[in-house]
Amino acid sequence: MELSHIEHIGIAVKSLEESIPYYEEVLGLACYAIEEVPDQKVKTAFFRIGQTKLELLESTDPEGPIGKFIEKKGEGVHHIAFAVRQLEQALEETAARGVQLIDQVPRKGAEGLHIAFLHPKSTRGILTEFCEDKQH
Amino acid sequence: MELSHIEHIGIAVKSLEESIPYYEEVLGLACYAIEEVPDQKVKTAFFRIGQTKLELLESTDPEGPIGKFIEKKGEGVHHIAFAVRQLEQALEETAARGVQLIDQVPRKGAEGLHIAFLHPKSTRGILTEFCEDKQH
Repeated sequence: MELSHIEHIGIAVKSLEESIPYYEEVLGLACYAIEEVPDQKVKTAFFRIGQTKLELLESTDPEGPIGKFIEKKGEGVHHIAFAVRQLEQALEETAARGVQLIDQVPRKGAEGLHIAFLHPKSTRGILTEFCEDKQH
Repeated sequence: MELSHIEHIGIAVKSLEESIPYYEEVLGLACYAIEEVPDQKVKTAFFRIGQTKLELLESTDPEGPIGKFIEKKGEGVHHIAFAVRQLEQALEETAARGVQLIDQVPRKGAEGLHIAFLHPKSTRGILTEFCEDKQH
């Protein structure tokens, strides 16, 4: 398994509308896409910074994962996503090393990427995502 | 102000000794430095992944910032550090846009870099660090 870079950092926010101006006007980053992911009950906004994206996540349902996260912990970093070349192989290797997988097989995430989540109980407290990126 | 990339992600852990094996053996990253930063009451371990570093932070004092963070929130992402070319200028611009600074002037952080922290009350809940990086 080879992790090439940090694909994105997922950040839970109460409101995209209220948060986007901070990232654009204070940090000087450009929001290049807003996308709804009904499967995850979120609306996302993306910013690029070097090799990495910041993915702001606003819940579309208080019972969804981001709604529950914000209720429990407040706004902040929700997950870290690593780019991997071969996602299925990475999942097999990770499971073989004792990590509990949330997604046993890859599924489609935001931006049409194949992704899978690892359980934070097995990843030292960090909700971790693998994103397939065959280009790097 | 120009943020070129994510310099590092700071991750609060209870124990470097217990956490390093996960990053090395499961994720396949190499720990290239362990450094104590007495000023911050932490011991740090660094891993490189693409343009970014992961900085694990173990508290050396329960009253230090990482000790208090873990007591309140548990292990997890503590801060995000952005690389900036001109740190003093970036701080001036950020303050002019209404952001509260923790460090009014740059100070020396881990790896001898000039750094400064912005207050999470002004940064949508994310404790944010700027690191001067003149090379990118």
